[in-house]
Amino acid sequence: MQRDDVTAVAGNGLLDRRLFLSGALKFSAIVGLASAGRAAADVPDEPWMREPGAAFSNYGAPSPHEKAVVRWISATAGAPTNGVSWSPLHELDGILTPSGLHFERHHNGVPQIEPAQHRLVINGDVERPLEFTIDALLRYPRVSRLCVIECGGNSNAGWLQKPIQNAAGYFHGLVSCSEWTGVPLRLVLAEAGIKPAATWLVAEGADAFGMTVSVPLAKAQDDCLLALFQNGERLRPEQGYPLRLLVPGWEGVVNVKWLRTLTSSDRPVMARNETARYTELQPDGSARMFTQVMDVKSLLTKPSAGMRLDGPGFYELGGLAWSGRGRVTRVEVSADGGASWADAALNDPVLPQCFTRFRVPWHWDGKPCVLQSRATDETGAVQPTRAALLEARGRHGYFHYHAIVSWQVDAEGVLTHTYVDAADAPAAATDPFDADW
Amino acid sequence: MQRDDVTAVAGNGLLDRRLFLSGALKFSAIVGLASAGRAAADVPDEPWMREPGAAFSNYGAPSPHEKAVVRWISATAGAPTNGVSWSPLHELDGILTPSGLHFERHHNGVPQIEPAQHRLVINGDVERPLEFTIDALLRYPRVSRLCVIECGGNSNAGWLQKPIQNAAGYFHGLVSCSEWTGVPLRLVLAEAGIKPAATWLVAEGADAFGMTVSVPLAKAQDDCLLALFQNGERLRPEQGYPLRLLVPGWEGVVNVKWLRTLTSSDRPVMARNETARYTELQPDGSARMFTQVMDVKSLLTKPSAGMRLDGPGFYELGGLAWSGRGRVTRVEVSADGGASWADAALNDPVLPQCFTRFRVPWHWDGKPCVLQSRATDETGAVQPTRAALLEARGRHGYFHYHAIVSWQVDAEGVLTHTYVDAADAPAAATDPFDADW
Repeated sequence: MQRDDVTAVAGNGLLDRRLFLSGALKFSAIVGLASAGRAAADVPDEPWMREPGAAFSNYGAPSPHEKAVVRWISATAGAPTNGVSWSPLHELDGILTPSGLHFERHHNGVPQIEPAQHRLVINGDVERPLEFTIDALLRYPRVSRLCVIECGGNSNAGWLQKPIQNAAGYFHGLVSCSEWTGVPLRLVLAEAGIKPAATWLVAEGADAFGMTVSVPLAKAQDDCLLALFQNGERLRPEQGYPLRLLVPGWEGVVNVKWLRTLTSSDRPVMARNETARYTELQPDGSARMFTQVMDVKSLLTKPSAGMRLDGPGFYELGGLAWSGRGRVTRVEVSADGGASWADAALNDPVLPQCFTRFRVPWHWDGKPCVLQSRATDETGAVQPTRAALLEARGRHGYFHYHAIVSWQVDAEGVLTHTYVDAADAPAAATDPFDADW
Repeated sequence: MQRDDVTAVAGNGLLDRRLFLSGALKFSAIVGLASAGRAAADVPDEPWMREPGAAFSNYGAPSPHEKAVVRWISATAGAPTNGVSWSPLHELDGILTPSGLHFERHHNGVPQIEPAQHRLVINGDVERPLEFTIDALLRYPRVSRLCVIECGGNSNAGWLQKPIQNAAGYFHGLVSCSEWTGVPLRLVLAEAGIKPAATWLVAEGADAFGMTVSVPLAKAQDDCLLALFQNGERLRPEQGYPLRLLVPGWEGVVNVKWLRTLTSSDRPVMARNETARYTELQPDGSARMFTQVMDVKSLLTKPSAGMRLDGPGFYELGGLAWSGRGRVTRVEVSADGGASWADAALNDPVLPQCFTRFRVPWHWDGKPCVLQSRATDETGAVQPTRAALLEARGRHGYFHYHAIVSWQVDAEGVLTHTYVDAADAPAAATDPFDADW
């Protein structure tokens, strides 16, 4: 199989997205490695075929050979319960994040809650204040949905003057995708009887930080869930056990963990995490507040920064796309720094506010190049270039960084993070990166 | 809210499937418990709000309060590496099974494979015998799909003369649903060049049992995967790490774990697990062999055997349906032992060969009754009654039990497993239950 047998659909060797699954190529040629498809005459028994294996287990764990596939913990010096842990997106495939690898963001650690003592209280501007045990909530009707939760501060190293050199997941991995199952919030609100004047719902968590945020009532009555299950089983402690507010498509902080109160009100509570944080000065001098919906976004994970291509030849480029506003409708990939683009194939099912896995075949000619992906969602929103994002949002940005991600491939095949449009970016007065978002 | 306000759509209080999510009912009435919606004046801090919580973790685990939610191990006396472990379906919700709770069936334990030493060999009637390292396979194109794997022996206690009294998962839980990601098998087979005479592919695992089964080439070239990832991360050891053959919709034994060879042939290998096992004498004296496709099936999990209803009132009935032949198109629920049926709501997405969660509202009047569910798939196949299955398959059945499951509710609200049509069943000469399937 020669390189000449296939026609590129965009610069630097991007191929038609249907080519790989068509069976039209020989994959030993695609892999380009003599070791990939070695002729096999006889097959000797492997050593682990000669003795009985390990016994059954009540609850399984990953292979010891995968012990490097972990959440990367980045906590505040001197305050180990305040920080984040990042999902290793660069090690994963498919659209699900294993619950054990779902990103964390805690302000004062993971409370060890006795579920029998935990209560959900609904009060404020309601006809009937209500208090629920977890057992009572478990009798309510439930629905399930697959969707992401993304921290509003995810990818914020993108605001830095110099490209950060972390693995993809340890740069963009404050987003994870799960199947969440719970009670539709509007059913419980209808039971409490929200008074006509109320327009907001203030949610509080039962951790030692007392996380408090405001959710517009319209969103609360739309698609929010009182989540009790994650990926089939009850919530993990670090994801809010025994009860989490799920606000599909909205920044992680609004998805209050260890949920204990929902207070109906005619105004937001103006808590720390919607004033001192999550409010940003714009270039025109105005302040950006309550920007809860997460924008359309994508990145290549296969390959990504820190990886190395094993010589010229055929590769599958793959990654993740998602949007807080609905379904991803298109992902394009560029191998020439954005000069030309090829459509990627999207793996079914494509669901709203959910990870969508995209893939496109590529022939690398061995020369330096820049790989990018660009997602579009069903509202027509297109992931911006970094230059466009900086122009619109200025240099005081800290949250909601969602620009196109660029991976530089050098002549040795080594990938690093780069800014293709760094020269156009205005200079920041101060470095916006700060561990306490 | 009075019972009289809603109209039953089937006997013994089954309600319209849209009623619960419509907001037309007050759920404190549905739950029927004074403790469910208790008026809340002030909300004292909970004890875990007064001190910092637990630190971040590299890989999470369930809450200690959920430690009873485990796989139930049932291994052969004197041979602890031969047996099964059951998924606790009665404790789960949504369509995914956490990887740690995915059922196991091992013949000689879980081999501890060094992934760098593992090879996949493709040989037999091929133009080019091939040998792959895992690293080489990881460079190939991949696709993902959500689907179940079900042991051919799942639910086989249903063949017993008396209804077994186990929790639902420890009776029907040799089925689990995951997102599997891997290399389409047909790509690798095309590369090896299957010779025209070949019609079968013999797959062998690298465990100390040397599991060997035959797969028709047509199925291998259709939708099978060389699975490398499960639920986002690399396969778990007990699910075949580092490589598993995924055969969507077919009985678990064909989904060979720790896959090491695929041998192309013009005939099946007639291995133990397709002759001495998985072959069954029929009422007409013929033998049933190579019955690999799993039939349409469903069961109620919420509530199910061993649970207790907390008095008369409103309940959500919920459960799981699936079919090896494609999508589930309909699930009906009966509360009068099959005399009348109400359509259940199906939770999106409904995917082929995948768990589908169904739910229907119900008002229990406090009297004894029998709860059932009945699934239909896109081929038009309908889950049979137990009497119909026994009539068709006789009393030598051991595999592929998929009849309608009946839960008896007594006047105290306690659920037990029952046979509504036991009187019609022919007597078995011997008890077919046997731990060594």
